[in-house]
This record gives sequence, C-alpha cells and structure tokens, in this order.
Amino acid sequence: AFADLDLRRTARRGYPEAVYCSGKTPAQVAAIAAAVGQRPDVITLFTRAGAEHADAVRAALPDAHHDPDAALLAWPPALPPPAGGTVLVVAAGTSDLPVAREALLTARYLGREADLIVDVGVAGLHRILGHLPALRAAQAIVVAAGMDGALPSVVAGLVTAPVIAVPTSVGYGAAFNGLAPLLAMLNACAPGVAVVNIDNGYGAGHLAAQITAPR
Amino acid sequence: AFADLDLRRTARRGYPEAVYCSGKTPAQVAAIAAAVGQRPDVITLFTRAGAEHADAVRAALPDAHHDPDAALLAWPPALPPPAGGTVLVVAAGTSDLPVAREALLTARYLGREADLIVDVGVAGLHRILGHLPALRAAQAIVVAAGMDGALPSVVAGLVTAPVIAVPTSVGYGAAFNGLAPLLAMLNACAPGVAVVNIDNGYGAGHLAAQITAPR
Amino acid sequence: AFADLDLRRTARRGYPEAVYCSGKTPAQVAAIAAAVGQRPDVITLFTRAGAEHADAVRAALPDAHHDPDAALLAWPPALPPPAGGTVLVVAAGTSDLPVAREALLTARYLGREADLIVDVGVAGLHRILGHLPALRAAQAIVVAAGMDGALPSVVAGLVTAPVIAVPTSVGYGAAFNGLAPLLAMLNACAPGVAVVNIDNGYGAGHLAAQITAPR
Amino acid sequence: AFADLDLRRTARRGYPEAVYCSGKTPAQVAAIAAAVGQRPDVITLFTRAGAEHADAVRAALPDAHHDPDAALLAWPPALPPPAGGTVLVVAAGTSDLPVAREALLTARYLGREADLIVDVGVAGLHRILGHLPALRAAQAIVVAAGMDGALPSVVAGLVTAPVIAVPTSVGYGAAFNGLAPLLAMLNACAPGVAVVNIDNGYGAGHLAAQITAPR
Amino acid sequence: AFADLDLRRTARRGYPEAVYCSGKTPAQVAAIAAAVGQRPDVITLFTRAGAEHADAVRAALPDAHHDPDAALLAWPPALPPPAGGTVLVVAAGTSDLPVAREALLTARYLGREADLIVDVGVAGLHRILGHLPALRAAQAIVVAAGMDGALPSVVAGLVTAPVIAVPTSVGYGAAFNGLAPLLAMLNACAPGVAVVNIDNGYGAGHLAAQITAPR
Amino acid sequence: AFADLDLRRTARRGYPEAVYCSGKTPAQVAAIAAAVGQRPDVITLFTRAGAEHADAVRAALPDAHHDPDAALLAWPPALPPPAGGTVLVVAAGTSDLPVAREALLTARYLGREADLIVDVGVAGLHRILGHLPALRAAQAIVVAAGMDGALPSVVAGLVTAPVIAVPTSVGYGAAFNGLAPLLAMLNACAPGVAVVNIDNGYGAGHLAAQITAPR
Amino acid sequence: AFADLDLRRTARRGYPEAVYCSGKTPAQVAAIAAAVGQRPDVITLFTRAGAEHADAVRAALPDAHHDPDAALLAWPPALPPPAGGTVLVVAAGTSDLPVAREALLTARYLGREADLIVDVGVAGLHRILGHLPALRAAQAIVVAAGMDGALPSVVAGLVTAPVIAVPTSVGYGAAFNGLAPLLAMLNACAPGVAVVNIDNGYGAGHLAAQITAPR
Amino acid sequence: AFADLDLRRTARRGYPEAVYCSGKTPAQVAAIAAAVGQRPDVITLFTRAGAEHADAVRAALPDAHHDPDAALLAWPPALPPPAGGTVLVVAAGTSDLPVAREALLTARYLGREADLIVDVGVAGLHRILGHLPALRAAQAIVVAAGMDGALPSVVAGLVTAPVIAVPTSVGYGAAFNGLAPLLAMLNACAPGVAVVNIDNGYGAGHLAAQITAPR
Ligand SMILES: Nc1ncnc2c1ncn2[C@@H]1O[C@H](COP(=O)(O)O)[C@@H](O)[C@H]1O
Ligand SMILES: Nc1ncnc2c1ncn2[C@@H]1O[C@H](COP(=O)(O)O)[C@@H](O)[C@H]1O
Ligand SMILES: Nc1ncnc2c1ncn2[C@@H]1O[C@H](COP(=O)(O)O)[C@@H](O)[C@H]1O
Ligand SMILES: Nc1ncnc2c1ncn2[C@@H]1O[C@H](COP(=O)(O)O)[C@@H](O)[C@H]1O
Ligand SMILES: [Mg+2]
Ligand SMILES: [Mg+2]
Ligand SMILES: [Mg+2]
Ligand SMILES: [Mg+2]
Ligand SMILES: [Mg+2]
Ligand SMILES: [Mg+2]
Ligand SMILES: [Mg+2]
Ligand SMILES: [Mg+2]
Repeated sequence: AFADLDLRRTARRGYPEAVYCSGKTPAQVAAIAAAVGQRPDVITLFTRAGAEHADAVRAALPDAHHDPDAALLAWPPALPPPAGGTVLVVAAGTSDLPVAREALLTARYLGREADLIVDVGVAGLHRILGHLPALRAAQAIVVAAGMDGALPSVVAGLVTAPVIAVPTSVGYGAAFNGLAPLLAMLNACAPGVAVVNIDNGYGAGHLAAQITAPR
Repeated sequence: AFADLDLRRTARRGYPEAVYCSGKTPAQVAAIAAAVGQRPDVITLFTRAGAEHADAVRAALPDAHHDPDAALLAWPPALPPPAGGTVLVVAAGTSDLPVAREALLTARYLGREADLIVDVGVAGLHRILGHLPALRAAQAIVVAAGMDGALPSVVAGLVTAPVIAVPTSVGYGAAFNGLAPLLAMLNACAPGVAVVNIDNGYGAGHLAAQITAPR
Repeated sequence: AFADLDLRRTARRGYPEAVYCSGKTPAQVAAIAAAVGQRPDVITLFTRAGAEHADAVRAALPDAHHDPDAALLAWPPALPPPAGGTVLVVAAGTSDLPVAREALLTARYLGREADLIVDVGVAGLHRILGHLPALRAAQAIVVAAGMDGALPSVVAGLVTAPVIAVPTSVGYGAAFNGLAPLLAMLNACAPGVAVVNIDNGYGAGHLAAQITAPR
Repeated sequence: AFADLDLRRTARRGYPEAVYCSGKTPAQVAAIAAAVGQRPDVITLFTRAGAEHADAVRAALPDAHHDPDAALLAWPPALPPPAGGTVLVVAAGTSDLPVAREALLTARYLGREADLIVDVGVAGLHRILGHLPALRAAQAIVVAAGMDGALPSVVAGLVTAPVIAVPTSVGYGAAFNGLAPLLAMLNACAPGVAVVNIDNGYGAGHLAAQITAPR
Repeated sequence: AFADLDLRRTARRGYPEAVYCSGKTPAQVAAIAAAVGQRPDVITLFTRAGAEHADAVRAALPDAHHDPDAALLAWPPALPPPAGGTVLVVAAGTSDLPVAREALLTARYLGREADLIVDVGVAGLHRILGHLPALRAAQAIVVAAGMDGALPSVVAGLVTAPVIAVPTSVGYGAAFNGLAPLLAMLNACAPGVAVVNIDNGYGAGHLAAQITAPR
Repeated sequence: AFADLDLRRTARRGYPEAVYCSGKTPAQVAAIAAAVGQRPDVITLFTRAGAEHADAVRAALPDAHHDPDAALLAWPPALPPPAGGTVLVVAAGTSDLPVAREALLTARYLGREADLIVDVGVAGLHRILGHLPALRAAQAIVVAAGMDGALPSVVAGLVTAPVIAVPTSVGYGAAFNGLAPLLAMLNACAPGVAVVNIDNGYGAGHLAAQITAPR
Repeated sequence: AFADLDLRRTARRGYPEAVYCSGKTPAQVAAIAAAVGQRPDVITLFTRAGAEHADAVRAALPDAHHDPDAALLAWPPALPPPAGGTVLVVAAGTSDLPVAREALLTARYLGREADLIVDVGVAGLHRILGHLPALRAAQAIVVAAGMDGALPSVVAGLVTAPVIAVPTSVGYGAAFNGLAPLLAMLNACAPGVAVVNIDNGYGAGHLAAQITAPR
Repeated sequence: AFADLDLRRTARRGYPEAVYCSGKTPAQVAAIAAAVGQRPDVITLFTRAGAEHADAVRAALPDAHHDPDAALLAWPPALPPPAGGTVLVVAAGTSDLPVAREALLTARYLGREADLIVDVGVAGLHRILGHLPALRAAQAIVVAAGMDGALPSVVAGLVTAPVIAVPTSVGYGAAFNGLAPLLAMLNACAPGVAVVNIDNGYGAGHLAAQITAPR
C-alpha cells in the first residue's frame, strides 16, 4: 500500500509511467518491479536507480535493460520501433554525459529515433558549428550543459526546431549545483528554449518524444 | 549604430526577430521601427512596449497592431493564415491575463491557430476539468500561472501534448516575484512540462508555434 | 545539566514535550530516556532518532515503541484511547512516506484517530479524486509532498477542513531540498493551507491533533 | 470572459470565494462586483483593494463595507452572526496592524467572534504575558509579526490552541521583506505553529475560521 | 612558509591569535603547535580541531587542555586569573551546547569569569525567566540558539548588558543551516543584540571578553 | 489602542524605548508623540522618520531636535551629560554618512561622548591608518560600510576595543542592498566584530552605548 | 568633512580617483567638484551621476565633459593622448549600451584607445563572428551582456586577450537584476574571463586600461 | 566518442586546453591522457584531479608532474622558459593554499615567472604591508581569500597592476561556501579587481598569464 502505480497513464497520456527510484527503498522498488512484471504490454522505465535499486529490479525482471551511466532500467528491454520525428541530444562536455544518456534512452524507449553528440561546448565554437547539418535535421534538440549554460542559446539561434535545455550540476563554486546554467537557460537570448529541471534527462527525453510524436 | 537587426533570422530559423523594447529609449525604438518599415515581407513584433514605446512605433508604422494589455505591437498588422497544429493558452487567474495574451498573440502572428481559457486555477478543480475536450484537442498548451504554479502539473497529467509553463509574477510575499511558481514548474511531478522565464509570454508563444509547426 | 525537560508542558499546553534527538549525542539521549522513565504518566516521543539514538532509548526503556521508517520512538508504548476529530494523512508519493508516518504516529500518540493514504500525486488526478469521501470525512488533513508541492492546493480546494501542508525534501535539482514545495505551499491558491517546516511530520501531526482536539 | 467566479465554493467548501484585487484592473473588479451583486446570499470579500479598486467595488455595491487599513471590502456589509469558537488576533507591533486587521475582518465575515491585541512584541515580555487569560481563552490565535518573528514561538509555548503565524514585511535590511520572520516561524521551537504567506492576513483569518468552525 | 603567525597580536590588540584548524592539514597544525611551544608567555587557542588536529597539537604540546565537545585546545593549559566583568553563556537547547562551550572556554582563556546555562528555549518561557537574577548580574551575555533564533530578543528585552547572539546550525529544513536564526537575530526587535557568524562560539566568547575587559 | 509604549523600559533596561516610525502612519506617530510629551523625564528617540513623520512629531513636540540626514528626532532635545567610555563612529564612504550619523546621535542621546570620522575606506589605506590614535582611544568603535564591507576587519585587527559593524545598502548590483557587506562582516577574519542589521545605525549606537556604559 | 578625496591615488596607483555620485547629495557632489577644480593636473571622473548630480558638477566645472547615456562626467574634459594597447568594448544588445559606454569612456579617459561594437548577441552568431578581426586585434576586450550572459564565453574562446565580462541588469524575471549573467560569467567554460560587478562599466574600463597599460 | 579535445586551442588562443577531471570517470581521464601523449608539443594540464584521476593520468603519462595539494598534473612535466611579466600569488590564510598553488602552477606552466606569499590576511595588516615591494614589482597579482574576502580590496588600493581575486570556500556558516568573499570581491571599493569563480585557481592563473603575456 505504499505505491499506486498510474497504470492508466499510457491510455490517458500516451506515455507510460516511470518509477523514480531515488527516494524509494530497494524493497519498495522490488515490489513495484514485481507488479510491473504483470504488464509486459507497457514499457516501464526505472529512473535514478542506484546499484541496489538496479539489483532489486533485475531480481524481479532479469532481462531488464540496464544503463548504469544513465542510472536507468527499462522493461521489457526491447526498444519500440521508432516513429515520428528524430531527436538529437547534445552534451556540452564529457561530464554532462550521464544526463544526456538518460535523455537519449528515454526518447528511444518512448519510440523515437535519437542520436547523441558530445563535448561541443562554446569554448571551442568550431565544434558545434561542425554539426550544423545534424542540428538542422532534427525535429527536437536536447542540450545538456552545466557551468555557464551558454550552449542552448547558441544552438537555438541556429535552428528552426525547439531546443530543450537541461541544466546540469556539472561545475563548482558559483555554479551552485546547476543554478547558474538553469538561470542562464531561462534567460536564453534566443527564443525557442524550453527548460527542464537540473539534471532532468528523463524529463528532457520525454518532452522531446512528445514534440516529435507522429501526428 | 546602436542596433544590428537580425534580419536573416527568418531565413535561418523560420521565425522573424522580435524587438525587446523595455531596455530601449523611445528614440531607439523609433529608429528600429523605421528600419522595420522597409521590410513588409516579414512580420516584426515589438514586445514589452510601454506607452512611449508604442507611440514611437506607431509614429513610424501607423497601422501597426497594438495590444496594450499584452504590451505588444505587430507590423504589418495582418495575421498570417494559420497553419500547423493548434495552440491553447490557459491562464490560471485573471491577473495572469497579460502574460497569456502575449503568448496568444505571438503564436498567432507566428502562424498558428490559438485559443485562450482564463481563470481555471486548481483552487476550483471543476473549472479546468470542464475544459478537458479543448485541452486534449490542442497540439501544444501554454499554461500561465503565478502563486503556487500548480496548474501545469495538473494539466500535463491529463493530456498527451507538451505543456509550456510560464510562471508569472502574480502574487506577493513568498511568491518572490514569480520564483515560487518557477520552482514549482521546474519540479512538476508530471513529465511533459517545458518551462520558460517568469512572465515570458513571448517565449511561450514562440515555443508553442515551433512545436506545432507544419511538418 | 545539559537538558531541562519541560515536564510542565502537559499541564501548561495539554501536550507532552518531545525529545528532538538529531543534535544530541546517544549518551545525552540515554540520560533523558532514564529521566523519562520516572514519568510513566505522560507519553514522551523521541523524534528524528537514528539507530544509535534508538538503541540508547531502548536500553533505558526496553518496551518503547519504535518506528524506524518514521525515526520515532514512544514511551510508554500504548496508544492513548482516541478522542476528538479524525485526522487524515496524505502522502503525494512513495518517497514522502517517512514524513507522513511521523505525522500519523504523532497524531495517534497525541490521542487522535488517524489514517494514511499514499501515492496520490496530481500527475494522476484520478487517484486523489478517488479518495474524496475520506478527504471530506476528516476534521484535519495533513498533506506531505515534495517536488512541485501542488497537492495541498488541490486538496484544500475540495474540502472544508484545514489542510496542513508539509513540504518534503523529496526531489532533486531545483527542488532545492524542499524549498520548491515550501514556496508553493505558502502560495497555495486555495485558502485554508497551514504550512510547517520541510520534512516536519512531527509538527504537522501535532497541529492536526490540536485542531481536532475534543472541545 | 476574464474571470470564472468559483460560485460553487460555498457549497463545496463552506466558505465563499474572495476576489484578489491587486493584479486586476479597476474595470475587471467593477465587472466582478456587478456579478457579485446578483448573489446577495453569499458574502464576498474583496482583498488587497487599493483606492481605485475600492471605488470600482462601491460603484457597483454602494453599501459595501470598506476597511481601508485592511485594504478589504465585504458585501453584503452585515457581519454574519458569530458561531463556533473564538479567534484572537495578536499584532506584535503597530506596523503589523494592517495585516492583523485583514485577519480579524476575514474571521468575522466568515462567522467567528474575533478580538485584537496590538503592540505586544517580545522586546517587552510583560506586555504579552499581561494578556495570558485572553490567549488561553481563544480556540485559535493569529499572530502577525515582522522583524525577528519571535512572538509566535513564545505564544505557542503558553497555550493549548493552535497558533497561526503571519510573517509581515515590516522591517528593513536583513528582514528581506518578510523572509526573516517567515523562516523564524517555520522553525518555531514550540510545536503548534501553522505558517501562512508573508502579509497574508486573509489566509490567516480563513484558517482561524476553519479551525474554530462549529462541529 | 605556509603560515605567518600573528605573534604581535597580543601586544597590538591585547588578545592572542587563535589557530583556526579546520582548513589545515594535521601536519600544518603540528608545525604551528611546535612554534607555539616556543612562546609559553601567551596562551594560544586551537579552534575547530577535529580528532586528527587534536592529536597533532598534543604530540607537540602534551599538556594542552582539550575540550572535544567544543573542538578546542589551549596551551599553556592553565586558565589565567579572571579579571574584569563576568560573562554568562546561555544555550537555548542541548544541541547548542558545543557552540556554547566554545564561547565559554574562549572567554575564560581570555581572562574572564564565565558561567553557562543550558536548555532554556522560549518554548517553555518559565525556564529563562527562572534565571533572571543571573542574567541581570552579568556584564555580557552570549546566547546561542538555532531554529527560530528567538531567545536573544527575549533576553535582550530583560537586561541592561549587551547580548551577543550566536546563531547555530541546529535544526533542519528551512533552518537552512543556521540562516533562519541568523536573520532573526539580525532583526531582533529588542536593541542591544550583537550578532556573530553561525556556530562562531569563538568569536562570541572573544567579543564578550572584550566587552567585559577591566578598564 | 494601536500602541503600547514600553515605558517601563528605562527602569528595566536602563535605556528608553525608541519609536520606529517607518511602518506607522503620521497620525499614529502624532498620537505617540503626544503621549511622549507627558514624560519629559525620559528621552525618546523617533527613528527612520520621513518628512511627514517629522512634521507630526514637531506638531506635538515643537522643540524636538531633528536631524534630517539621520532621519531622527529626539525629545526632550537636550543631550544628557556624557558618562562612561567614549564611542568612535567611522563611515567608510560619504554615502554611509546617514547611517553613521544615526549611530552617532543615538550614542550621544543615550549618554555617551561620541565622535565621527568619514571617508576612510580601505581603497586608500593611509586614510584609516592616519586615525590610529583616535581608534585606539575609543572604548567602542562603530564602523559603517557598504560594498565590500572590508573596513571593520581592518579596524578590528588594529585595536583592543570591540568593533560594531553596520553594513549599509550603499552600492549596486551584487551588493544586493547590503547583503555583500553583511556577509563580509559576519565572516570578519579578525575577531571582535559585532554585526547589526543593514543600515541599522540606531542599533549600532545603542550597542556602543551599552558597551561603554559607566560601571 | 564628509569626504576625504584620495588625491594621492594617481601617485600611488597611476590612476586618479573617481567620484561615485549615486549615494551622495547634489550639495556634496558640488563641494567635491569645487575641490576637484583646484587640481587640473589630474583627470577626475564623476560616475553614476543623475541629472541633479550633473548640474552640480557643471555649476562648478562648466566645461566638464558630460555623457548622459553613460551617466558620466569628466574634468578636465580633454582626453589624454592614447598610449598602451587598444581596448575593444562589446555590447551584446542595444540595452547594454549605457554600461558599455561607461566602460568605453573610462578606458579613454585613463589613456587608452578604445572602440565599441553593439548588438552582437549569440542569438545571431554571425554578428559577433563578423567582427573576428577587430576582436583579435584588441589587447583587452570588455563584453557587457545581460540575460543569459553567454557572449563572454563565446568571445573568450575565440581570442588570445583577456575578456572582462560585465553582467548587466538587462532582462526580467529570472534574470534577477543581473544575477543570471553574473553567475554565467563566473562559470564561463572558456578560461580568460575576468568578472566585475553587475552594471559596473567603470570598473571594467579601469581594468581594461590597467591590462593594456604601456610597459 | 565521449570527448572532443580542443587541440586547435593553442593555435587559436595561444594557450592549450586543460582537462577538467572532476566530473569524469578515471577511465575517461585515462583515455584522454593517452590521446594527450600523442601531442608532446603542447603542455596539457589536468585540473581538479583526485587520487584516482591522478593514477589514471600517470598510468598513461608516467613522467607527468603531479602536485597533490593543487590537485593538478602537467605533461610534459618541464616548465616552459618564463617570458613576459611576473605574476605574484597571494594567499590570505594557510587554508587558501591549495587554490593559490593551483594558480601558481598554472601561471608557470603557461610560461610566466610566478611567486607565492602566504598567510597575510588583513587581521594583521603589517603582514601584507611588509610585502609592498614585491606587490609593486608584479605585473599581475592573484589574491586568494575566503571568509570576508577583504584582502583584494586592500591590495588593489596599493598597487598599479590588476588584481585577480579568487574567492575560496574557506570558512563556515555565513561564508556559504565562498559566497561571502565572492560578493565582497565583486564589490571591491578599489577599482582594478577582476573576479573569477570560487576556488578557481586555474582560471586565476590563466588570466594572470594572459595579462602578463609578452607583447
Ligand atoms: N527522473 C525523473 N525526474 C523527474 N520526474 C520523474 C523521474 N522519474 C519519474 N518521474 C515522474 O515522477 C512521478 C512520481 O514518481 P513515483 O514516486 O514513482 O510515483 C512519476 O509519475 C513520473 O512521471
Ligand atoms: N519579451 C521578450 N522576452 C524575451 N526575449 C525577447 C523578448 N522580445 C524579444 N526577445 C528576444 O531578445 C533578443 C534581443 O532583443 P534586442 O535587444 O531587441 O536585440 C531578440 O533577438 C529576441 O529574440
Ligand atoms: N489576499 C489574498 N491572499 C491570498 N489568496 C487570496 C487572497 N484573496 C483571495 N485569495 C485567493 O486567491 C484565489 C484566486 O483569486 P482570483 O484571482 O480573484 O480568482 C481566490 O480563489 C482566493 O481564494
Ligand atoms: N573558530 C574560529 N572562527 C572564526 N575565526 C577564527 C576561529 N579561530 C580562529 N579564528 C581567526 O581566524 C584568523 C585566521 O586564522 P588562521 O587561518 O589560523 O591564520 C585568526 O587570526 C583568528 O583570529
Ligand atoms: Mg572538453
Ligand atoms: Mg478566480
Ligand atoms: Mg507514483
Ligand atoms: Mg512598540
Ligand atoms: Mg529541550
Ligand atoms: Mg571617497
Ligand atoms: Mg538585437
Ligand atoms: Mg593565520
């Protein structure tokens, strides 16, 4: 009686519920995983899953897909066939990779074709400019960046598609655990930037999947 | 030499530049409006235009459309024929109306069909529930709310389309000029919520237009 | 001489003192527990008790009731016979359970009948709406929620009784350890929301017991 | 179409809606007042009404009761006969009076007997201690205080009834427009303190009326 | 060459330097302690000394006085004969004891007679009122309090001597590691409150010693 | 009935109450001034008095002393004969003068000899060093500074007497209305710095008078 | 006696003192201007001078140079002959112009050759890229930007010279009066960015002059 | 494909890229170190390298220079021959040493002559004044300070060269992990202070090297 899985969510919203593991005990996650095992017709994601959470999921669902970098599990493990527009995920630096991968996998498990570009921060502008064709080919672009959070402004100024900006907690001092890039992204001088919570790769991937949904 | 209008923006991004008036002198806005008058082929928006800014625009562009509530002017004044998906703008309370109208007009001038629903905050839940059909018919929903910023979470949990949440500076005390709804929206417990800056109706309308663009 | 238990509190206020363990050494808690053992006529709560604190209490008071999830001990262990109105405790998500249980047990040890509902966040509105009869039957409702803190506004808009909102530190990033739901709750657009400190289940349960006291 | 009065609120919640004037134009308030005039069966409060708002209300409802100090109007103007428990409103200093009066009038128009004590801050402790009988006779106590926000802790430690603490924006410098007393009240060392938004006398009076409602 | 002890401080200011250990390596503290051993004519305090720092000091100065609760060492260990006025240190709760003891010992090693009263927070006002004679007999009063930080205001309103308020990091949630009592103390409604940094018992004891210095 | 003057304060604390004007209406201040006129035996200060407040005081107390720079009035107007130690007030810059004068006059009206030094900020260190004899002759030093708030640390490192640091709201941008110097002063690297609220010249002068009181 | 001009500054530091007008009365500025008139051998700048301050300066120094946009006056009015390296000042948007001009004029009056580029924000990247030769020719670059503060990172990544970043208060909502660009600039992902206070064009121009000083 | 080293940076900017280790896995750092080993013609710095990062670097580049205090590695290990002006690094206290050493080594590996002075905080002003000749001989001065951050203001007021201020996270309580000195430095009352991020010794050393570059 500690959880009331929103199983009607797929019917109501078109996307399945995800289980946010980080505040739950492994025992609670295990019980939820067992319930999930009764519903192979919907794909369930387990997000922010530490090692113990992952063990609990795989005890109940041994064939679950597990991406430790993204702290994410998915069951059933097979990706759905991609439909709709394509999603491009961009990580400003190597340290933003875990968040970017969470977005990438979420978009793919929600049914989109999705690609990843890494380490193209604005300190070396030629790097992002070298990817202009890929940027302009995507129907939605997720940009994960910490520190100054400048990359989404630059990208949004170059493309037609919406940019989903994910501030990350990468950095130190006056980055204040992601506050600096969060504020920068909210104040992006180029319009067309949608902001989600700090480190929220899941939310970014979900939004990207909605924006690129087949019509 | 105080402005370098980004006239290539429509070619590059598909959407024209907007002139942010609030930090400019009326004389600067007047000069920009004169330059804009040379380019009737693109629609230019003047945002956050106070009374003196509006006078400066209309001196140069007498037939500009002016919506004082939204503090917005547009020239040429005619709306483009709508294309793409439909946008629904929702204002939690009456006081959120100026921001909501800015979003509404921006979406319309960027080529979308757009509608408005007002005063449907969660304190009386039957009000928003009474609009479920309209909510589910839209391809993108803008929700403007101040105070607790609870409405976007509720709406996002009911629909398939992305929700663009605009925190407003409506409220007092611990609303801290929009900080409270901004944080609430960034932490929306329902996925599918894209956040823009406090009171940024222009950015919300722009994003909504991009999301619903014809493919 | 490191503590001066407010033993007159029950006489003065009608409710006994509680011992806040988290800043105390186990040795200090042990000494207090020994003193408490001289007063079986009043029920004493030990709150925010870690494992070592709990061991210290049970060394002196072996039959103390211990709820590790709520980090709470009570002695004497028997619940008083319930009197006054009924209290309903609502947890928005599974992760809010420890705080909700602290409120539940506090209300019960202070002499109220109290019940618990879990995982009814606004992302799936049908869940809380499915509990309307229980919500309307209670004389005081405690709502524990993290992230966007939207649930208390929704509940308060549906009932006559006061809602006691407890923001929790559940969430990450711009939740800022409970700041986001705290601000949301202070700005609840429905009147009738009383806010207590982040994660303060004890304070919420205490207030609920006072509000529902027999007259 | 800029407002959707929650007229079912009295039926649903037992208390009528209040019109929050401060974000509305006088014309909007005038239109709402006209609609209110059709419903003499429910008492409507207009809160945070400046001089122009008040004029707009009285143009439509000439006999409305107006308290300029509390920035509040009520129509119909007659107080309902008091029922339920009694409410005591306490203002720490003279400058807290507007907020305290808003609470006082709200409680009275919602059907309670309510009294007011002013200028009894903790800097001269004998002042509040001189009112102990009145404090102990009330079923709910509203305490409005700015600066250090210390009074609610002191009062709550002396009484059985719940204390509703209203931080005010009285003070300067590190009072940060009410943040200092808000934080102090949320951390009251005495349990039994319910906090509402800074300067929210309306919310405090509403909560007090709910807590003291006839059972 | 990593430290330049301010050995002239006693001559210049009348009080010796203290060594702030927390940012130093044990090896650095050991070297400083060795240098201190050359100057038995001045008393040196080592503040915020963890277990390893304490070991380092005692290796060089085996007879140093060590108070682990206060995280403080002193060498030479003998207290100077007290002179000047008397200092009273008051801790609101048991958890404030480490900070209070740091103040107490600092005042004593700087040459004052000093006493300590613990667990007299405003939640049970009779406790502090029971110490009025001692409060009125002191020439300077240090008050350490966390949570709401209300005690210094109450004490200052009762006495003639200056009150030195030390906010502590005791508490959780919206106490924000001592920010809440810090702001409350800066806004004390009674004049005569001098504030020092959060948890700065050393600074409070130093100020108290200066204020009560023999004239 | 809007004020309860703490007339027993002089008896209890040795210093009279001051009337904080800024949150009061001129009518309220006028009524208080009339009451004050009945008690020529105690000196009453009116602080933070704007032009209308000053007019109200002087209507009732025509011979009141008025210092518009310090926004302060005193009645009866004659300074008491100085007793106790001497107070030195130091203003880092010209813009800190209003706060410094408020401290100066408060100390004088509370019975101390007090002097003022202006425009000796650390940007030109020779200026403060040129006043070393005066600094070392005072029994208490008030230092008012905005911007970086560096002066109190420098002064405290040079003298034996306690330094009372008053952060001022002088500056702009990241001075955040006095937050920057407030934090700097709380973290003064020299011990012996007592901090009061931003712009609180009254509190600084009061503390200085207490510290230098005749023994 | 309200000011102690640091006239030795030119001798000591190589650069004259500037008079910060904003916290001073016009009468104080007038007296300082009169004193300045005795020293035609050093150039004095009056910064943040409103209309009344400017009138006061020109009454004493009729031939002073006045730039109302930059709120700056200089006397004697003639620019010194330029020496050392060249300074380039870049304004991201038109609204950043006042701050940029303050930097430009300060650098020039301190003896540097300095140029200005306006409206080259990253939303249209081709604009700043079109100025690469000028950027690479400068020995120091000042970049003034509000909103997301992204431009300094981009510029620093393209050049060898140091970049002095000036956050401006241009923007609204979560720009928090310049906090957003300030944090972004402190976290610039390209090294070589020196940050000054929000809107501090004077400080930026001064630093640029020092960096490019003749060796 | 997790990193895209900006190897063109030396050509473009004149200074090589540095590898920020703290957000990277040891495996990622190892792979980058292997790539770096192919380019002995440029010096690469590895900053914020913990023990595991250092091991990873030295496995690939056994002769790399490693300074554990500064958490920095450099390869090739030989310092380039110094050119340009000289850099002086000043640490206010012993605890600021790690940050100061990071600045020192960065400046040296970027080709400058650089020296270090430690423990000269303003609490004992004679210490910094005793180094005046060295301060006036440097072409750029880095000042690292925590707590009140007062030292850069004092130093800047004494010299001609630019001062690069690095706030450190040294301190506790209201130092807020470096926020206090950061704000103080941004508001330095002496012009000529360039601020970098909290604890950013690397950025400070880089800026110092740029400012003192051979012309
Ligand atoms: N990583 C995540 N970040 C933000 N929201 C999430 C994440 N994972 C799941 N959620 C949402 O959080 C809600 C509450 O999760 P739960 O506590 O599992 O009921 C779910 O309805 C999800 O849609
Ligand atoms: N109301 C607005 N809010 C946020 N951004 C805006 C707004 N109006 C215009 N903008 C953007 O701000 C950028 C800078 O505007 P400007 O200062 O006019 O060059 C433009 O490129 C617009 O895309
Ligand atoms: N002074 C007030 N402070 C906080 N909430 C209020 C106040 N006055 C009215 N409210 C609530 O705010 C809600 C929205 O008000 P409105 O914008 O008038 O629809 C109403 O449902 C009221 O319950
Ligand atoms: N616990 C403490 N809190 C605040 N300041 C201290 C503390 N202990 C020592 N200090 C002061 O901090 C200064 C710097 O200490 P140090 O780093 O040891 O040179 C010393 O001059 C002391 O006066
Ligand atoms: Mg990289
Ligand atoms: Mg409404
Ligand atoms: Mg759930
Ligand atoms: Mg009073
Ligand atoms: Mg206790
Ligand atoms: Mg000056
Ligand atoms: Mg522009
Ligand atoms: Mg030292």
